[in-house]
Amino acid sequence: MYVHNAPTNNLPPTIMRSAFFISDGTAITAETLGRSLLSQFGDVKFDIKIIPYVDTIELAQDAVKRINESYRLSGLKPLVFDTIVSDEIRAIINEADACNLDIYEGLIARIADEIGHKPDPHAGMAHGRVDSEDYKARIDAVHFALDNDDGARTTHYDGADIILVGLSRSGKTPTSLYLALQFGIRAANYPLTEDDLDTSQLPKALQPYRHKLFGLTIDTDRLVRIRQERKAGSRYASLAQCQEEQRAIQAIYTTQKIPNLNVSEMSIEEIATRILQMTGLTRRIG
Amino acid sequence: MYVHNAPTNNLPPTIMRSAFFISDGTAITAETLGRSLLSQFGDVKFDIKIIPYVDTIELAQDAVKRINESYRLSGLKPLVFDTIVSDEIRAIINEADACNLDIYEGLIARIADEIGHKPDPHAGMAHGRVDSEDYKARIDAVHFALDNDDGARTTHYDGADIILVGLSRSGKTPTSLYLALQFGIRAANYPLTEDDLDTSQLPKALQPYRHKLFGLTIDTDRLVRIRQERKAGSRYASLAQCQEEQRAIQAIYTTQKIPNLNVSEMSIEEIATRILQMTGLTRRIG
Repeated sequence: MYVHNAPTNNLPPTIMRSAFFISDGTAITAETLGRSLLSQFGDVKFDIKIIPYVDTIELAQDAVKRINESYRLSGLKPLVFDTIVSDEIRAIINEADACNLDIYEGLIARIADEIGHKPDPHAGMAHGRVDSEDYKARIDAVHFALDNDDGARTTHYDGADIILVGLSRSGKTPTSLYLALQFGIRAANYPLTEDDLDTSQLPKALQPYRHKLFGLTIDTDRLVRIRQERKAGSRYASLAQCQEEQRAIQAIYTTQKIPNLNVSEMSIEEIATRILQMTGLTRRIG
Repeated sequence: MYVHNAPTNNLPPTIMRSAFFISDGTAITAETLGRSLLSQFGDVKFDIKIIPYVDTIELAQDAVKRINESYRLSGLKPLVFDTIVSDEIRAIINEADACNLDIYEGLIARIADEIGHKPDPHAGMAHGRVDSEDYKARIDAVHFALDNDDGARTTHYDGADIILVGLSRSGKTPTSLYLALQFGIRAANYPLTEDDLDTSQLPKALQPYRHKLFGLTIDTDRLVRIRQERKAGSRYASLAQCQEEQRAIQAIYTTQKIPNLNVSEMSIEEIATRILQMTGLTRRIG
């Protein structure tokens, strides 16, 4: 027997509402939007299921079975976020016993009306192919980030779009790679270590590139925690050492006029987006 | 004078319709969905403008000015995709002279109705913080991918979730990094080079990890093109050499029963998603 509209607040904690992200492609769009919408509900936990590549009637019927089974087991209507282009396949998904949040429905038609073009889902799919310009720009940027990670090499900074600086463990490496993968931006990164900080001067390798530098900072307590997890009990991870490095790097940022960002509360996506905004750097892809 | 509903087909090619992706956050959700919707219109080119962090009334008014200016200059109503949570700020954006594709409108209310919870946009935002579990999983995976890129080190394969293999320039490195950043998956990668291929045996370092191997392949003509761009005129980039390597690696995949994927037509996102689907690997984040 189905339980309709059961009040979720009184349920035992083991029963979670399912959320399905379904697409005929990677389901990245459905997932991105779905997670973003679900995050508006703060502490409510969802049991997330991602079903990509639902591009046949059979696969759509399989997905419907999974949705209905989830409803049967939990008594809670699953939330279904789908970005399926084919009307025929989408109609099958919409038959599931679920709260259907059909993302494309309506939107594509409104755009078509406004621009006076019919949708043509099969065109324009070539941009990501391994021999496309965008793909090459991404790969080149990724290899640039790898080759110029962690101050490994300092002779290619002429080709850098940006050089991230900061203390050890402030998030420079993942940010460089994200900038490369997502935006095709060539980001080097250089850790300012104790030796650099002692002099309160920029390291020689960086001096000609002051205009390309961007600093990442994080709160001292977080820095201590992250370093403790890496090297517990070390001087490197001590509060005194972290405080001293923080003081020194802030002095460098100030005297050298290096734009910088406190990334303590930020995801990698947020750091990268803020950097684009603050520097005015232009994406090479997208 | 505004030109309403001008037929886009007859416009000179220099006038493109603007599409704005606007958010009070990174605008990644608005951009992902917006690009996905626009890609349904194949060859139509849009002039894309991304405005993140519109979180005050003043910034919303600035955005409206930019939208209206674009309309004034082109005579074409801009498409506006926004994911703004605040009703007050969203209302300002919706006043622009544009085709407003207000993504959140309605969807949040429908979810709230279904789950019986009110939205609480300020909760649940901590997952990306630099000291969160998700952040740590991502960073660990990124460092794993870096340390185990391109066969650089083969002593840490016990800790790998997956080991990508393939010819030089088949997309292993960006795929490893994407798997790390997006899914927290620890992906090593190992290039099968001429020496490895001569024997039609797996290299010694890989033999104990056959169950973790996943092969990437690309079409020979694309491989030649990519290698030509890297080392024009070399034997490495010659058709004969690429054909021979392709034959040899396919033999290894077959005899060693290594699952593999032709990635020629795929973006990095698609490659990563297909790998998850084919292997059943579980994400460590998200």
